[in-house]
Amino acid sequence: MLPKVRVVQWGLGSMGSGIVKLLLNKEGIELVGAIAHRDTKIGKDLGEVLGLEKKIGVIVSSESDPSQAWRGRDVDVLLHATCSTVKEAFPQIRKAIEDGLNVISSAEELAYPDAQNPERAKEIDRLAKKHGVSVLGTGINPGFVLDALIIMLTGVCFDVKRIEATRVNDLSPYGPTVLNSQGVGTTVEGFRDGVAKGTIVGHVGFRESIRMIADSLGWKLGKVEESREPIVTKVKRETPFVKVEPGMVAGCKQVGRGIIDGEERILLVHPQQIHPELEGVETGDYIKIEGTPPIDLRIEPEIAGGIGTIALMVNMIPAIMNAEPGIMTMASLPIPAALLGDVSTKIRRKG
Amino acid sequence: MLPKVRVVQWGLGSMGSGIVKLLLNKEGIELVGAIAHRDTKIGKDLGEVLGLEKKIGVIVSSESDPSQAWRGRDVDVLLHATCSTVKEAFPQIRKAIEDGLNVISSAEELAYPDAQNPERAKEIDRLAKKHGVSVLGTGINPGFVLDALIIMLTGVCFDVKRIEATRVNDLSPYGPTVLNSQGVGTTVEGFRDGVAKGTIVGHVGFRESIRMIADSLGWKLGKVEESREPIVTKVKRETPFVKVEPGMVAGCKQVGRGIIDGEERILLVHPQQIHPELEGVETGDYIKIEGTPPIDLRIEPEIAGGIGTIALMVNMIPAIMNAEPGIMTMASLPIPAALLGDVSTKIRRKG
Repeated sequence: MLPKVRVVQWGLGSMGSGIVKLLLNKEGIELVGAIAHRDTKIGKDLGEVLGLEKKIGVIVSSESDPSQAWRGRDVDVLLHATCSTVKEAFPQIRKAIEDGLNVISSAEELAYPDAQNPERAKEIDRLAKKHGVSVLGTGINPGFVLDALIIMLTGVCFDVKRIEATRVNDLSPYGPTVLNSQGVGTTVEGFRDGVAKGTIVGHVGFRESIRMIADSLGWKLGKVEESREPIVTKVKRETPFVKVEPGMVAGCKQVGRGIIDGEERILLVHPQQIHPELEGVETGDYIKIEGTPPIDLRIEPEIAGGIGTIALMVNMIPAIMNAEPGIMTMASLPIPAALLGDVSTKIRRKG
Repeated sequence: MLPKVRVVQWGLGSMGSGIVKLLLNKEGIELVGAIAHRDTKIGKDLGEVLGLEKKIGVIVSSESDPSQAWRGRDVDVLLHATCSTVKEAFPQIRKAIEDGLNVISSAEELAYPDAQNPERAKEIDRLAKKHGVSVLGTGINPGFVLDALIIMLTGVCFDVKRIEATRVNDLSPYGPTVLNSQGVGTTVEGFRDGVAKGTIVGHVGFRESIRMIADSLGWKLGKVEESREPIVTKVKRETPFVKVEPGMVAGCKQVGRGIIDGEERILLVHPQQIHPELEGVETGDYIKIEGTPPIDLRIEPEIAGGIGTIALMVNMIPAIMNAEPGIMTMASLPIPAALLGDVSTKIRRKG
């Protein structure tokens, strides 16, 4: 029998909990440790923390001594879902890399860390190579819809003049943290103030997606421009966590532009709001490639974001274990695939 | 300066000619040899053979001594576009592999040679590993729309119950060889007769696409069923090469079914005909994944087939040069990308 893939999950918020539940359904993978931020979860059985019917036999470790979760357990991969930035992620994944774990993280900036954190990216790459492990940032976006999928489509092109892609999604299922970060429920003035102060961040990842696309195609990226505008509702919109009256902000329309040779060659548009259907807005993922041949792709409704990110974190496990040491990206690894069989059969064990 | 990628093109039909023209526009690639089947092309300058305005400085070699095209020229990659089957392709690419060339072929069965040619697949893999080179079969289909793109989409899924994908295209731009192979212009009886005799082959590649999908997802593939039905026209349809009266055959509707655990879990549908618009049929690529989440993708019109295959043959050059030795597939290599910059910068030279 092939050895199972041994995994530790760091982060037990909605993303991390979803990852754990998915892992428990996969053949050939064993979850051997978990790390939580909140004191209320630490020291308890993971099954109890997640509200499952039975115990899993994994006691949740503390972030203050994360290596407790993998020490002596011959762990292959750390799945990391705690933050968005490389600055926050680096100190957390550093110890895992040094202890010989491959890392897959949902931190948006890790999808292409060279974009905004070139020095830390070099350091991660150096450490990963030194310790013979591979590091990947992935997720639905950045990591899939507005970068890897676009790049893949250009593979059938002789030439590409310009790329325009839009992801229209629905924030209604999300909780307060996400809603606040998008400015949902604020006044227009409050929205602009929040953007200026950095409390309303909108989507994190356009700079990473745009660099990934440009580098993959061989375009020399000049400036990246980004804007965040309030989506002001004309009708009342409501979720369990927020009420938005007409004239107030139901979401954030984020736009990213990649300027190449002085021209806008990459345009990414990402309006995120609660209940878009109340104003007749349909959700979907749209990619237009102006090139030879032209390509016009629609996915309606949009690929579910939370599910997509959780799935990619788990489905990329074989690719990251089989990869060369160093920092990897969704553009440098084989395409993902749903893992429906015994995952251990997909691993090429080294040495 | 980085060394250019040195390429030989084998096959100068419409596909091969398109590949040559695309290669000539790419920075960092040098075409150093070409091989033709037809005597009328051999010994002539490639520019003349392709009807270009000027000479290229490459004299077309004969298939009877193909290694003349690469001997002493330090060639990195053979691009091979002469046939559809592994049986035909193997003796041609064998010599190239033994002489240390990586190979990218448009032979449909090479997209997943293990599907119908497991013994030859093993032999190619063994030879490639022995000589330290990599071999890939690619093209729009098999190789992209009805396999790699589907697999990629499942990467965002927790689970997949069933896959249904359809490629509706237009054969009007094609010449007599393609039209005859699809039965265009025959009677219904003639069509059935041609299918029985193997002169009407329809699309080659469903068995390869279905195996690639099943293996990637970890599904144990049982039977593959395939059918070819005539598309009988109600109106007169005409191209420069064929006239089809009402009641006659305007194309071939091919269906492939992958049976897993006794159920049809993969359904691929590929109706190919001339002038589908005359009966109100719109062309497009459609992928439906019944899973968590469900995915409904449309690309309209369909990705142009000839261009797509030519583009993939060229755009996969960096991936095949950077790959480990052996048989590769579109599911085992990094995603393709349009090559718009200096291709030599994408190559990790070994040793």
